Amino acid sequence: MDMETATLPKIADIEAAAARLRGRAVPTPLLESPLLNDRLDGRLLIKPECLQRTGSFKYRGAFNRLAALDDAVRRHGVVAYSSGNHAQGVAAAARDWGVAATIVMPADAPAIKRRNTEAWGARVEPYDRNHEDREAIAVRIAAETGASLVKPYDDPFIIAGQGTVGLEIAQQAAALGVRPDAVLVPCGGGGLVAGTALALADRLPGCLVHAVEPAGFDDTARSLAAGTRLGNAPGATSLCDALLAPSPGYLTFALNRTHLAGACTVDDRDVLAAMAAAFEAFKLVIEPGGAIALAAVLTDHLPLAGRTVVAVLSGGNVDPGVFARCLAAG
Amino acid sequence: MDMETATLPKIADIEAAAARLRGRAVPTPLLESPLLNDRLDGRLLIKPECLQRTGSFKYRGAFNRLAALDDAVRRHGVVAYSSGNHAQGVAAAARDWGVAATIVMPADAPAIKRRNTEAWGARVEPYDRNHEDREAIAVRIAAETGASLVKPYDDPFIIAGQGTVGLEIAQQAAALGVRPDAVLVPCGGGGLVAGTALALADRLPGCLVHAVEPAGFDDTARSLAAGTRLGNAPGATSLCDALLAPSPGYLTFALNRTHLAGACTVDDRDVLAAMAAAFEAFKLVIEPGGAIALAAVLTDHLPLAGRTVVAVLSGGNVDPGVFARCLAAG
Repeated sequence: MDMETATLPKIADIEAAAARLRGRAVPTPLLESPLLNDRLDGRLLIKPECLQRTGSFKYRGAFNRLAALDDAVRRHGVVAYSSGNHAQGVAAAARDWGVAATIVMPADAPAIKRRNTEAWGARVEPYDRNHEDREAIAVRIAAETGASLVKPYDDPFIIAGQGTVGLEIAQQAAALGVRPDAVLVPCGGGGLVAGTALALADRLPGCLVHAVEPAGFDDTARSLAAGTRLGNAPGATSLCDALLAPSPGYLTFALNRTHLAGACTVDDRDVLAAMAAAFEAFKLVIEPGGAIALAAVLTDHLPLAGRTVVAVLSGGNVDPGVFARCLAAG
Repeated sequence: MDMETATLPKIADIEAAAARLRGRAVPTPLLESPLLNDRLDGRLLIKPECLQRTGSFKYRGAFNRLAALDDAVRRHGVVAYSSGNHAQGVAAAARDWGVAATIVMPADAPAIKRRNTEAWGARVEPYDRNHEDREAIAVRIAAETGASLVKPYDDPFIIAGQGTVGLEIAQQAAALGVRPDAVLVPCGGGGLVAGTALALADRLPGCLVHAVEPAGFDDTARSLAAGTRLGNAPGATSLCDALLAPSPGYLTFALNRTHLAGACTVDDRDVLAAMAAAFEAFKLVIEPGGAIALAAVLTDHLPLAGRTVVAVLSGGNVDPGVFARCLAAG
């Protein structure tokens, strides 16, 4: 899809995605901890996408993207580049549709992400994160095999699929008799927050949607401030392997500059503390990138006192060694 | 309540408990892992009660018990003895009803269980597990204060509350279009498995319900074989602190000998492996006792091949140090 002609998704596209995902994606519950609420003097609801098929929200967008391909195109298979969560989402969606998937994945991706991508039936093509261009490798494979490239975020069907998280938040909050003041969403390339914000602009107008990024990867925050897309400086590192996109997407930024109330940044130490808090308060395994919105609440970047806030916990694909670090730090 | 006159709960009591718990207990979802299903060549659904209010199923029975007390009685408060999960359930239910709770708890209970029991507002009275009689201490407190004793399992309202787990399994399996062949339930005093089996005998007749016990604490298995209640030999130890009841209850055994298809035993090493499997496949934090039914499936004590089985994961209140052991062993 050419960027200049790409169309921004609309609420109807998210509704269509929700219909396609019915009976396939897990409608993850909204959960809360009264003890944590006491401590924070507000009401925190979490949306645990670690319980989603493939352990992250990425299955939603990937399945929706494959579902929208023409059958004659889809049967040639799909190719994607991903550090691991999009990889598993695409691999699982390809299995659902009975087509081949090739995933271009950094050689240093978490072992659990590579192992599971292969377990879902995909072929993994490793590359060197520092010296090779993953997009170029994926485009070459697409040209050679006729496979369709499934982008990680800058695609209207991917954004619409991720936006079903926002639809569910609105429905589930209404069922609980709650009206959230704000929703906090982890942000790498910005697909999840863009889709969620689009859904909530329709379903919960006035609810503030914030992106949360890792320190050193605050491209969306700086782009929102500048009014134009800016990239991250090279050389930064973060535990949040799921959130290391080089810059906001074209489509995701167009949506986010319209819909977001703001963006904030959290460092690795606070991410580890949030993982430990999710262990204790929610009995959930959250990966670093998946815990960043919770970290923003716990560190008072976005104060909870007197408010009702939803934090999206976007994934749980974390190696045991990294998880042990959060337990030891707690 | 005197044992000789105690009445066994009936399905209508579980339905009444479900009505009382609506909007209070979390209707925990049935989850599955397609990758784990592939590996086991069957279909495994889990019922993650670690996501329940207070981090275990115990809130269900405790709330139902307090709800059924006369208001004039309830206002004098409640007292309970518990290694920690029933403690938190009673403490939370007492908070819901605005009454005082005292919990007699072993001095060596997991720190997270004591801390959370106090956070829910209860007073903890520690005792020495090896040299003091917790029931006698609780009865003395009840006599001194007028508080009602809330037993951990041998009470028809407690069993009926826990039985709502079985009602939900039947409803949720039907919504998924699945008919379980068997349901595996962790067993200490036997309240959860007794209530669940009672519900399933009504809602899913023919579905086999099995109790799963820790090695060295197989009192229910031996009692079922002997046709009479037998206690555990002293001196055994287990990581499964939630399942160390001395013998089956009077009411729970009466139900279990009627309804259970069998009971099996799992050792600590296999429990740790099941905790690690729940970490990887389900992104859930499960305490040792809570993982024992999953362990029975993974060790082929109850083979899954070609079948659909539900494992109840009964709680997630585990200290970080113990959880780190399962990660290191994996």
